[in-house]
Order: sequence, then structure tokens, then C-alpha cells
Amino acid sequence: MTSLRSFLQQSKQLVEKRLPEHIQSLQAPEQLKKAMLYSLNAGGKRVRPAIVFATLQSFGAPLERGVDVACALEMIHTYSLVHDDLPAMDDDDLRRGKPTNHKVFGEALAILAGDALLTYSFQLITSLEKDSVSDKQKVELIHEISRAAGPAGMVGGQVADMAGEDQSLTLDELLYIHHHKTGDLLTASVMAGAILAEASEADCKLLRQFSKELGLIFQIKDDILDVEGDSSVIGKPVGSDVDNKKSTYPNLLGLDGAKEKLSEHMSLAKEYIYGININHSMLIGLTEYIANRDH
Amino acid sequence: MTSLRSFLQQSKQLVEKRLPEHIQSLQAPEQLKKAMLYSLNAGGKRVRPAIVFATLQSFGAPLERGVDVACALEMIHTYSLVHDDLPAMDDDDLRRGKPTNHKVFGEALAILAGDALLTYSFQLITSLEKDSVSDKQKVELIHEISRAAGPAGMVGGQVADMAGEDQSLTLDELLYIHHHKTGDLLTASVMAGAILAEASEADCKLLRQFSKELGLIFQIKDDILDVEGDSSVIGKPVGSDVDNKKSTYPNLLGLDGAKEKLSEHMSLAKEYIYGININHSMLIGLTEYIANRDH
Repeated sequence: MTSLRSFLQQSKQLVEKRLPEHIQSLQAPEQLKKAMLYSLNAGGKRVRPAIVFATLQSFGAPLERGVDVACALEMIHTYSLVHDDLPAMDDDDLRRGKPTNHKVFGEALAILAGDALLTYSFQLITSLEKDSVSDKQKVELIHEISRAAGPAGMVGGQVADMAGEDQSLTLDELLYIHHHKTGDLLTASVMAGAILAEASEADCKLLRQFSKELGLIFQIKDDILDVEGDSSVIGKPVGSDVDNKKSTYPNLLGLDGAKEKLSEHMSLAKEYIYGININHSMLIGLTEYIANRDH
Repeated sequence: MTSLRSFLQQSKQLVEKRLPEHIQSLQAPEQLKKAMLYSLNAGGKRVRPAIVFATLQSFGAPLERGVDVACALEMIHTYSLVHDDLPAMDDDDLRRGKPTNHKVFGEALAILAGDALLTYSFQLITSLEKDSVSDKQKVELIHEISRAAGPAGMVGGQVADMAGEDQSLTLDELLYIHHHKTGDLLTASVMAGAILAEASEADCKLLRQFSKELGLIFQIKDDILDVEGDSSVIGKPVGSDVDNKKSTYPNLLGLDGAKEKLSEHMSLAKEYIYGININHSMLIGLTEYIANRDH
């Protein structure tokens, strides 16, 4: 049994090796490929790929089967960051300590690089080897991921988040934003692993419930880190949410209340996972890692 | 045999009825749906849907089978216009005589509405009824369309176009831009019709060659209209390409040279179409319509 640490490292290596291969093989203007690669190479925890791989492993399926889908999810996540950072949106100059895409390539190319990453992610899934992924699975994958990334998912969450800025939100409104802005793509990552592993319908149902808890754990921890994290580890100033009068778990429930919520969702997440007859350890380990991370 | 005029009207009605139904059924923030609908409803010739329907009809397939794919293509075309109009890109205040998306909804929402239209277009194709479109066809459709819209297609063409502004281009460079910026999505529209009609591989090959001619005809005519069109019919000022020192067919070949090129490509387009054993009239009629249009 590999340890979580080496598993995370392995999954990071798998996507970080494959991502540039995909971009370099594109017949596209060099400057566009550079802009796409710049943000894909900017690092990050590669949480979505890790989720795909952990789900595959829990069903005993080969990790290799998930590499390209993991790349597609990382491309979509990256596109969303590039567009979020734009002057018209969050207007961020730095991301993970490096200049944001539009600071390096200009706004126009940053918009187009985001568009290209999003569009290419779907092409990538259609191009998977027929021997390992059937057409039925490809359609399911694209359905799941496009729904999670689109107007009823991530983009909708982002719009709701923008609309809610400088307003005090209820916990329900905050939940809506979190479910869609971050949660849906994490759910899609779990479900992508499940589709690739040919999980049963019953298992898929429990995994979907688990993944919603995972999304909340991810977001609540994010909010907590913004209050008590170490800015040199996180790579962005802490306390920015408080300054922005942003509605967050700690702002709504207090820091202790937020931590209590985190552990409630952790218990629920485990309950769902233990309800499935799989090798639980990696999914549980990954969930605990997300709940306990320092950045 | 329906006339081209009533065929175009019928295909316009088919998509213009279905497009708002798709958006209204979305579980997404109202403001986002409004912004998506605003640009989808802004009119236009609906050339891409017409191409899908004309291809279907030439194979004797029912038009109804193509409505949702036509909507998906129109959503992608619309997203590209919304992003192109942004201040960081072409900075246009008007589109078809109406304020551009960002002028009405702000830049942030315009970016997100474009992202949402693009992403949803792929979800839409995955959701087609299994009885009329197989998983294999869905994968082929998404492959064709995402490749045409992505970094090796439309987005790449847009990047090359931006890079070539204020520079004098060779005819080859101009061809590259046109093939990708406009041509690829027109090709995808032809091929989408062919996939839905279950055309043979040999027919698909000829259709692809035809569609490249169609794309050039479309663009050369666009360039010619910019020189001698009626701005009140076109809906934007004429002569803007000359003012921009933009490389165009008339700028490179003279107006007469451009018209000669147009008729050369028209002959080639017909040659390919007559090489296929289908009902040629609607595809030929549509191509002539595109070559002779006044806006």
C-alpha cells in the first residue's frame, strides 16, 4: 500500500508530465501555446487529478486510464483561474506567487488561452484510446464535466459569488456558491474516476454524495486558512476575505463554528465512503489531507 | 422542393425557437441566463445552423435531428462574438446595431456568459436523445466541433489575426487566419450534418473539401462587403478594414482580384458537391447565397 504522500506525488507527476505533451503537440500559434502552458505549469496541488486517481485506485483500476481525463480537469480548473484573475473579474496580479497570465501575456491572450484550455479539454476526452475508454464512457465523462463547469455549475457559482460581494449572505446562499463554484468540479473529478472504473449505479450514487461533502470540506478549510493560515505558505495574503467583508464560514459561524462544521462534513464523507465496497484508504486519506492541509 | 429562401427561414425558426428553451431550462443565476440569451437573441444570419440543415437535407435526413447540434454551433459562434467584442479584444460597442454584451451586462458577466455558452454547447450534444444519435456520433460531433473551436481552430485563428494586425500579411498568412478563424467552424457545421446523416467516409472527405471552399467564399465576400457594402445593411461601418490597414483579399489582390478569387472558389465548391451522390440543390444554393449576400 503506497502512502498518501507518495500517491499524491505520483499523481502530480503523471499529469505534470502529460500536460505539456498535449499542449506542445497542438498545431496552434506558438504564443497561444506559451500562454496555455504558462498557467498549466504554474503548479498548484493538482487536487482534481489526485481525486480522479484516488477514485480509480479505490476500485482497483489502473491509474494510467485516468491521466488524460485528469489533464482535462486540470485544464478546466486552470482556465477558470486565468479568467477569474482578469482585471474585469478579481483583478489579481499574482497567482501562487507568480504574475498572473494577463500580466505576462496581456488581457486578450489571457482570455483566449482560457477559452482554448476549456475547449481543448473536451477534445482531449473524445481522443481517448477506444480500447480503454468506450464511446459511452466518453459521453458520460463529457456530460458530467461540462455540466459541472458550465452555467449550472462552476460558471453559475462564479456569477453568484460576484453578485454576493459586499453583501452579507445567509448560510444557504454561501452553500449555493460553494457547491457550484468549487464543489461541482470536485464532484466531476470523483465521478470521472467512477465512470472510468465502471462503478455500479449504486456506488456512483454514494460517491456523488461523498463528493459533495468533499467539496464543502475543501471550501470550509479554504475559508479557515484565510483566517489563520501562514501567508508565506498559502502564497496569497491572509485575511483578505475579512477585509473584503466577504461572506465566509468563519465570518458566519466564527472560527470554532467553522471548524466544527468541517469535522461534521468529514464524518459524513467517511460514512458515504465506508458504504461502498472498495479499498477506502486512499479516498479517506485524500479527504483528510484536504481537511488538514496548510495551504 | 422548397426554395432556398423558405429553407433559410425554416432553419432560422427551428434554432431561434429552441435556443431560448435551452437557456430557460438551465438551473443557473437569472442574470447569467439573461446575458447568454441577450447575445443568442441578437439575430444574425444563422449561417451555421443553415449549413447543418442543408447538409442533412442533401442526404434526405430529417432536419429535426440537427436542431440541437445547430443550437450548439450557434452558441459557440455567439460566445466567440461576445469575447471578440470585449474591450481587451476588438473593443466594439455595437454588434448588429445593438449594444454589445459587455456594454449591457459589464465585462465580467460578458466573459462568464461566453464561457457558459461554450461549455453548455458540449453538454447539449451529450444530452441528445439516444434513439436518434448514438454515443459514437456524439463523440464524433464533439471531437469535430471542439477541434474546430479550440486552439488549433477558431481560437488559434483569432490569436493569429490579432498578431497580424497593423502588419502586412502574405496571402498564405491571410489564408491561415481565415481557415481557422471562420472556416473551421463552418467546416464543423458541414461535418456535423454529415455525421448526423451517417454519411460515408468517401462522402465526408469530399464534404470536408467543399467546406473549406465554403469558408473561403464566406470570408472573401466579407472582405468585399467591407469595401463596397451598404453600411446600413451590414450593420457596421464599411471601410473599417482599410482604415485598420488590415490585410484583406481586396487589399492584397484588388477588388477585381478578390472577386475573381471568389468565383474560383465557387467553382471548386461546386465540383466537390457534384462529386457526391446527394441532392445537391440546397448546399449549392446556400453556397451561392453566401457568395452573393449583401450583408
